[in-house]
Amino acid sequence: MSAALETAPGRLYGVGLGPGDPELVTLKAVRVLASADVIACFAKAGNAGRAATILANPALAGHVRPGVRVLALDYPVTTEIHRHHPDYRAAIAAFYDNASARVAAALDAGDTVAVVSEGDPLFYGSYMHLHVRLSGRYRTEVIPGVTAFSGCSAEAGLPLVQGDDVLTVLPGTLDEDDLVRHLAGGEAAVIMKLGRNLPKVRRALMRVGKLERALYVERGTMADGASRRLVDQPDEGAPYFSLVLVPGWEGRP
Amino acid sequence: MSAALETAPGRLYGVGLGPGDPELVTLKAVRVLASADVIACFAKAGNAGRAATILANPALAGHVRPGVRVLALDYPVTTEIHRHHPDYRAAIAAFYDNASARVAAALDAGDTVAVVSEGDPLFYGSYMHLHVRLSGRYRTEVIPGVTAFSGCSAEAGLPLVQGDDVLTVLPGTLDEDDLVRHLAGGEAAVIMKLGRNLPKVRRALMRVGKLERALYVERGTMADGASRRLVDQPDEGAPYFSLVLVPGWEGRP
Repeated sequence: MSAALETAPGRLYGVGLGPGDPELVTLKAVRVLASADVIACFAKAGNAGRAATILANPALAGHVRPGVRVLALDYPVTTEIHRHHPDYRAAIAAFYDNASARVAAALDAGDTVAVVSEGDPLFYGSYMHLHVRLSGRYRTEVIPGVTAFSGCSAEAGLPLVQGDDVLTVLPGTLDEDDLVRHLAGGEAAVIMKLGRNLPKVRRALMRVGKLERALYVERGTMADGASRRLVDQPDEGAPYFSLVLVPGWEGRP
Repeated sequence: MSAALETAPGRLYGVGLGPGDPELVTLKAVRVLASADVIACFAKAGNAGRAATILANPALAGHVRPGVRVLALDYPVTTEIHRHHPDYRAAIAAFYDNASARVAAALDAGDTVAVVSEGDPLFYGSYMHLHVRLSGRYRTEVIPGVTAFSGCSAEAGLPLVQGDDVLTVLPGTLDEDDLVRHLAGGEAAVIMKLGRNLPKVRRALMRVGKLERALYVERGTMADGASRRLVDQPDEGAPYFSLVLVPGWEGRP
């Protein structure tokens, strides 16, 4: 560790909260949450970004200090601008810079800051954008978490991959032809970020002959979690916390 | 739930123990381990398969009941026969049938049986072979765990995937040409089951131009965990608990 890091006052943690069930938080996450002066959390502006809402997350409840400060990092843009537009990338980069500066201010004051992420922080988590900006300057540790896809496999009781299976993890935001190309290449697949991408995902699975095998899971491991064959799920109403699993174990012993 | 399941006496749990650090067990796994009459565990015959060794696993220690019974499910064959040989598949299938019968006997006696897996049970875990044989006959629940690749990303502080990145998870046991084909298709990759497959994995990464970006991580999240660029890791000596990560976030904001 460099001398600058050794003397840096605060500590930064990226904490994975797991797939939803508050019991699927790790012992380490619980210990770190209890030590935090500040809980930071990314959210959509005007949506779940408020402090009270953040602290109401069942995976946090009961683990944080009374009087803990909450830093709500509210995304400035989400779907209003296309994600490949230069204005989107510029706005997002400026937002991450600004969020990092706010977290750095707390660290400079000597605070322990826990940035919480659903699932695992370095697996599609917004925390990574703070990590790459701050981990060279402050003592930093990442607490990995149970991913949404592991939670959803468990919810459905569906073995995902075994033996020599290849697993492809795909964001549902990809274009249909890209989905088809990637789905055709491997045995098993996880398709995340469903929502309004579900009709396109369904078409892609049909084109590669995997629709019949696909399982739809929403809110896996949460109290209102459910799973069904994708062919039994309508195109409308897939929440953000939903994904599609295609198992890879046809040849299992 | 069917009437047969409602009246079945025992309860079966597939419990993920996480990537190695005993603090990366979930609260739910701890609760279930404390309730178990029997702890069952797959292992290589004559290796870590003995009960005392199993209970010495730091992720189990302190969580199980005093006097808990241990069921060691020792693999009959591992690398002596090629995995695609019909004799291998027949021996493995018979082994899973026999292991299921042993677990079923405990369940029929009314015991709660926790089958423990490193990482996540339904993600390359041997537990799934019991699950598909027993979950229709007994009340069964899977407790997902933190995967080895999430643990290794955290160990290395390496963000793996973000935004629209595609992640491919590959067993290092695949043939070199198959590794090349899959690695060429997506942005990010996790290559598991390294060990003596490391030279082949290195050649495949070189062929697709991803060797320079690849990170080698061994025993991620364990006390003696370490990570380095793959180009700085010799071909020999990669332990079973090692893997290669290729990050996908070149274009991050």
